[in-house]
Amino acid sequence: MDQSKTTLHHCKFEVPEIIFGRGLLNQIGSCARRLGGHKVFLVSDQGLFSAGWVDRALKSIMEAGLEVIYFDHITPNPKDVEVEEGALEYIRQGCDVIVGLGGGSAMDAAKGIAILVSNGGRIRDYVGSDRIIRPLPPLVLCPTTCGTGSDVSQFAIINDTERRCKLTIMSRCVAPDISLTDPDTLETLPDEYVCTTATDALSHAMEAFFSVASTSLTDVHAIKALRLVSASLVNAVRERTPGDLENLARASLHAGMAFSNSLLGIVHALAHPIGGLYDANHGSINAVLLPEVIKYDIPVVTEKLPELAWGLGHRTEVGGSEASEVVQEVLDTMLDAAGAPRSLKSLGVKRQDLPDLARRALDDVCIVTSPRQADERDLLSILEKAY
Amino acid sequence: MDQSKTTLHHCKFEVPEIIFGRGLLNQIGSCARRLGGHKVFLVSDQGLFSAGWVDRALKSIMEAGLEVIYFDHITPNPKDVEVEEGALEYIRQGCDVIVGLGGGSAMDAAKGIAILVSNGGRIRDYVGSDRIIRPLPPLVLCPTTCGTGSDVSQFAIINDTERRCKLTIMSRCVAPDISLTDPDTLETLPDEYVCTTATDALSHAMEAFFSVASTSLTDVHAIKALRLVSASLVNAVRERTPGDLENLARASLHAGMAFSNSLLGIVHALAHPIGGLYDANHGSINAVLLPEVIKYDIPVVTEKLPELAWGLGHRTEVGGSEASEVVQEVLDTMLDAAGAPRSLKSLGVKRQDLPDLARRALDDVCIVTSPRQADERDLLSILEKAY
Repeated sequence: MDQSKTTLHHCKFEVPEIIFGRGLLNQIGSCARRLGGHKVFLVSDQGLFSAGWVDRALKSIMEAGLEVIYFDHITPNPKDVEVEEGALEYIRQGCDVIVGLGGGSAMDAAKGIAILVSNGGRIRDYVGSDRIIRPLPPLVLCPTTCGTGSDVSQFAIINDTERRCKLTIMSRCVAPDISLTDPDTLETLPDEYVCTTATDALSHAMEAFFSVASTSLTDVHAIKALRLVSASLVNAVRERTPGDLENLARASLHAGMAFSNSLLGIVHALAHPIGGLYDANHGSINAVLLPEVIKYDIPVVTEKLPELAWGLGHRTEVGGSEASEVVQEVLDTMLDAAGAPRSLKSLGVKRQDLPDLARRALDDVCIVTSPRQADERDLLSILEKAY
Repeated sequence: MDQSKTTLHHCKFEVPEIIFGRGLLNQIGSCARRLGGHKVFLVSDQGLFSAGWVDRALKSIMEAGLEVIYFDHITPNPKDVEVEEGALEYIRQGCDVIVGLGGGSAMDAAKGIAILVSNGGRIRDYVGSDRIIRPLPPLVLCPTTCGTGSDVSQFAIINDTERRCKLTIMSRCVAPDISLTDPDTLETLPDEYVCTTATDALSHAMEAFFSVASTSLTDVHAIKALRLVSASLVNAVRERTPGDLENLARASLHAGMAFSNSLLGIVHALAHPIGGLYDANHGSINAVLLPEVIKYDIPVVTEKLPELAWGLGHRTEVGGSEASEVVQEVLDTMLDAAGAPRSLKSLGVKRQDLPDLARRALDDVCIVTSPRQADERDLLSILEKAY
């Protein structure tokens, strides 16, 4: 199918209060108190505990005069059962504000817990768009990777362990009240996550920029994210220079502000079922799919390519087919230089699962804003090329 | 004094929910209802009433099942006495949500009324930064010019009629809950206001970009605003093409998102006392001051000039003194082509008042974020050059 969808002319733009800066993790407590909390439910993970960041957060919360319950029964690609356990614990302990500290997993788990404590039921009841009825408890999210964007986004992604799929929940309710980034936390991020989370930010920015729901309000953030990633990804991966890591944290924030409002596209519509089936790393899946999806999208987004080429660091004005080549070349070179995985096979995806994955992607909410209307055959073809 | 101030490394970014699009004025009612309102206090002016937009707003509010009280006892550069009258009327009528529809005057009056109904006292009690204690009633602001940015900003500017000065009130509380722009309303904007309000947006964007509190989050919006103004100002003034007018409305929004978070500088610090003393048009004052202030700022913001030149539509990469020349030239050419006033004298400012105006500007909150620390003599020199 080849027709392009019509671009939307109306726009809505909503972002939480944003706080960004080195050393600002010590404001967690005052943020939670400012939102009216007395007893904090802190969701984080064991890696951050070992790195000392959880202690920093606990100290800040207690110094703000609040009580705190610490919860870390979560795993990468957070599971429905973990979220349900967290919600029970929140209620049992009488908490009244949630803080999520970590990567996408800790933050999405915090969102899932927030959904259940005020809306009840099971997390799969809220799959899709705007299924949440009651307002969530106050929520502060503190990202510690360079990619997820969950700290500003209207998305929560939770794994359904029974059906082995990702549940994509989209609602303005799940955006937090405050997004607080302290780029110092990237110092202890394991090497492999610098690349995989930054390529997640990269795919957020590119899909947001191509989305049919993109507007000038989201485009400026998407392009800024691309400029920061293209300037700092390779250096951050190879040298771990604090300035480059901070740029990636900032890129993640800009990309999050873009995609939360313009939504995403085929990369994420495919990445969700793959992540659900294999429990594979989300950023790695995106890095593999992105070049193929961009190639597929390009014929219907030609007028946006010159700005995209500029965003990717190409400093001479280009147009038409030249812009298309520049975009694909720069992207390929960058992913190679950063050591990103380049095939689905290398991620453990089985070839016989591809048709099922293509089918499942059609049900993901992210496909709705793809600039090019893909059918099952198109999606399968993208998967095969990325295999 | 020549030293540059240090740029801030921490950033905070907060914007209201934003809705933008042609024909969306009919969502005023549902916005007010969504914020929990039952009886709307609608603040607008007689020009918008004659143009039919007030009727559209009233219809939307009534169709949403809400009651409404209409208030239009306001004048350009809204006065303390008007705001106090509005607050009394709001309380007498038992309203519970405020909608401001108009230019900066109607929206700032709506903000002033909101401050008084929940905090009491007189409007001058809230001058300066963060003096408001109690939360305001829900607030929806709908701009109908291409410049003020009041619909997203944390500022309210009210004239003190006794002391003949502008009161600058800055607080995160005065940003509305929802900013709703329907660019169709620009169709009936009188000719002279296209230029004067767009030059207000232009000065917001440039001052926000140079501000010591600017960050990547505000810079992307400042630059986008400049791109839109430089692409559409002259055409919008001369031809009133709907596309160019919409671009200016969008520029105003982007510039507002930038300056509300990065704050402003000397142009506004000087424009406020001038507007207070002469009741002159705010955008015209800015248009006159802007080139002189930019010239004054340039030595301490050299590293930002290449991006600024690009934002102003210059498509070849330039650096150093060349960028400085390009910026000044493009700005001068654009203001001339748009027919903006070019001297304080032409606005009715008296030469003997200049020393007093320079002194008053030192007390304005906008001076705090100027990239170059100006003393009274510097400010007087700028005023004399702009005379």
